[in-house]
Amino acid sequence: MDIEKRLREFKIILPEVESVGNYLLTRKVGNLVYISGQLPKVEGRIVFKGRVGRDTRLETGQKAARICVINALAALKAEIGDLNRIRQIVHLRGFVASAIGFTDHHKIIDAASSLLVDIFGDAGKHARAAVGVVDLPLGAPVEIEMIVEIR
Amino acid sequence: MDIEKRLREFKIILPEVESVGNYLLTRKVGNLVYISGQLPKVEGRIVFKGRVGRDTRLETGQKAARICVINALAALKAEIGDLNRIRQIVHLRGFVASAIGFTDHHKIIDAASSLLVDIFGDAGKHARAAVGVVDLPLGAPVEIEMIVEIR
Amino acid sequence: MDIEKRLREFKIILPEVESVGNYLLTRKVGNLVYISGQLPKVEGRIVFKGRVGRDTRLETGQKAARICVINALAALKAEIGDLNRIRQIVHLRGFVASAIGFTDHHKIIDAASSLLVDIFGDAGKHARAAVGVVDLPLGAPVEIEMIVEIR
Repeated sequence: MDIEKRLREFKIILPEVESVGNYLLTRKVGNLVYISGQLPKVEGRIVFKGRVGRDTRLETGQKAARICVINALAALKAEIGDLNRIRQIVHLRGFVASAIGFTDHHKIIDAASSLLVDIFGDAGKHARAAVGVVDLPLGAPVEIEMIVEIR
Repeated sequence: MDIEKRLREFKIILPEVESVGNYLLTRKVGNLVYISGQLPKVEGRIVFKGRVGRDTRLETGQKAARICVINALAALKAEIGDLNRIRQIVHLRGFVASAIGFTDHHKIIDAASSLLVDIFGDAGKHARAAVGVVDLPLGAPVEIEMIVEIR
Repeated sequence: MDIEKRLREFKIILPEVESVGNYLLTRKVGNLVYISGQLPKVEGRIVFKGRVGRDTRLETGQKAARICVINALAALKAEIGDLNRIRQIVHLRGFVASAIGFTDHHKIIDAASSLLVDIFGDAGKHARAAVGVVDLPLGAPVEIEMIVEIR
């Protein structure tokens, strides 16, 4: 299975990675790559804003989660050159900015998990945590972190 | 020290693990096992709900934290077969859904930390973080993640 | 570059580490050290309290973030003896207790990231996540976790 081909099948185009200041989008240690918390940015701008369950619908939160994953994969590709080097997605942590009283954070993060499994199959399955918060940087509804094992 | 015996001494019965959809309860990489965020579920249902300091008392939050740890150990056992293979608990992160203004999150997570040390002795000691949030998935008062080194 | 000398140049004096009960300030696994979530404590007391954007100004939050990093380095030194053994800072996660509606959490965590780069140069660069929450243990405005690779 060629991952670049899979991405094309899903019509996923990995964006240019943005430069960040005093930290890194990814840090490699041994055969693990830690990916910095990704926001639903497109061309440098947050495309969905606000809290899920108040300003933002569940489905919009799920779209935002998928964009976070795509941005994470773009960052990873910039680090490792070829996404076919991914051996397994190890871990995904998703923070969901949500209306007070909202308790369906896992449904937002399910969209991120499903996208990884769609693209990578069993290698895309991961341990994960879904957590609710009130606000995220730049007003984003979702922030996603990942750890990936490469070969 | 036999861990199964220790569990019996503490009258801890590890539950059947629940199946999850598009992610994994645990992911192994090298000799580390990442355990997905565990909620205080018994037989598939959240047994304590709501925010500590508002709907839920401190002691109830501590009970919930212990159930999260037991569920994490059940997930780990399903992955590695025998809990005697645990070399050390590396890390524990506990999120506590709490009333606005509540600042004793660490006392909830202390119950999780203490249970691990009770069961595993020095091998059960871990680096950790205790964090407050407003809401967690399914209305749970506590969510606990762990990383474990196995032999 | 001698790290102890760098710390002196920045007039940073690492504090005595505090003893914790049923967990550890650091846990080593292989050549990684996980550092427990650090609060802006000086001599055992939280020196800044409250939520950034309400009780606490942005600049105060940044000062708090720097103290968290210094406490993390003190904990790390107690584990590894000599900070010159640091090969790279792998990951930093910063939780910011903030006023509802505050979305500049990354600016608080930037202060932590910058301090690490100031001290360690390229080895201090790291993957990271900045997350907003409503309350943190003991009323701290910032909590910082780190993973470090040593040689």
